[in-house]
Amino acid sequence: MASDVAPKAPPVFDEGFRDRLRDLLVWRRDVRRFRTDPLPSDTALRLIESARLAPSVGLSEPWRFATVSDPERRRAVRENFRTANENALAGYSGEKAQLYATLKLSGMDQAPLQIAVFTDETSEQGSGLGRATMPETFAYSAVAAIHAMWLTARAEGIGIGWVSILNPAEIPAILDTPSDWRFIAYLCIGYPEIDSSSPALEEAGWERRRPTMDFVIER
Amino acid sequence: MASDVAPKAPPVFDEGFRDRLRDLLVWRRDVRRFRTDPLPSDTALRLIESARLAPSVGLSEPWRFATVSDPERRRAVRENFRTANENALAGYSGEKAQLYATLKLSGMDQAPLQIAVFTDETSEQGSGLGRATMPETFAYSAVAAIHAMWLTARAEGIGIGWVSILNPAEIPAILDTPSDWRFIAYLCIGYPEIDSSSPALEEAGWERRRPTMDFVIER
Repeated sequence: MASDVAPKAPPVFDEGFRDRLRDLLVWRRDVRRFRTDPLPSDTALRLIESARLAPSVGLSEPWRFATVSDPERRRAVRENFRTANENALAGYSGEKAQLYATLKLSGMDQAPLQIAVFTDETSEQGSGLGRATMPETFAYSAVAAIHAMWLTARAEGIGIGWVSILNPAEIPAILDTPSDWRFIAYLCIGYPEIDSSSPALEEAGWERRRPTMDFVIER
Repeated sequence: MASDVAPKAPPVFDEGFRDRLRDLLVWRRDVRRFRTDPLPSDTALRLIESARLAPSVGLSEPWRFATVSDPERRRAVRENFRTANENALAGYSGEKAQLYATLKLSGMDQAPLQIAVFTDETSEQGSGLGRATMPETFAYSAVAAIHAMWLTARAEGIGIGWVSILNPAEIPAILDTPSDWRFIAYLCIGYPEIDSSSPALEEAGWERRRPTMDFVIER
């Protein structure tokens, strides 16, 4: 367990660490273009171990991880993406459709490591604490785990891309996951072709970030 | 914007940083016991700025933040928690009920800074990219933002507690938020009474973490 490897006295984080943490957040990207060189063989396990340091509602640890290496299953997920992406393209018109068609929105064809993330919706771990009125907190716990994994990966120079352009109803059958698992995310993982401090969708002209105060109200 | 302050060359993260990042993840807690000393006055804005470095589906930045300082609104949120917590307690029996009654599950009575997090479900930023089949990715983006904020806070010695024992349908009225905002989380923020590398629910005997391999399948 994590506490076994933790230092005994609380760590003190200094200004230098905080600056580097900010760099890490600034340079974490949703990666769609991967180099094909393999990752260290223990990468999946190490990333999943870091994911488990995220908060979970009621200490429920509802996250579940399926590492996907079977070529036929990978092909089926790619096909699922292709169909969902074609349908998405059909929803745009004019310049937006032209631009959408040029975007690379999945690295499934290249990423050496691929992990699907689920929640076990029937898990009794945590005894329901904290989710009686907000059952979606199981999914939220899995998302926090994904973000922890993402930062840990980036600190090793490893990129992650979250693919959500999928028909989520079909993924459990493709991956033969337990019937109570709910699909949350499909992660492509590998060394990125490039590092960048701006989102690929901003660089491609799809969207731009807005000022912080656009998102804040005071009450 | 974040890119304005980013270094121009990609940062290199070394082993020392990775060890400290792991310490940060290990020592991040869901805090319910706060000291009442005030935080630096720019804390809310700085934490929200770090939250915005999280990934968002289609660069939609759907997260919205309401800082809550009005005493009457805070009282109403506390009352909402009290009712939801009583209802939750009524769902347990025997030893579990006795233990639940002893748990402190919200720091609303002490936390000097309180921020409610929402998504704007009607935002057109991102033009729907990535969420046609999985609209829940708006909420997931907000959760990633919360986790980014949480780590940034911890690196400053500041604790965050996520309160989900609330009736989410009533929060928008209490906080008078725009009608299209969906409630995601209520965050209590302040200096923690103690630092710990194990979850409070584990120390209280409510639940324990399980081995990593319990959560992983290979496909």
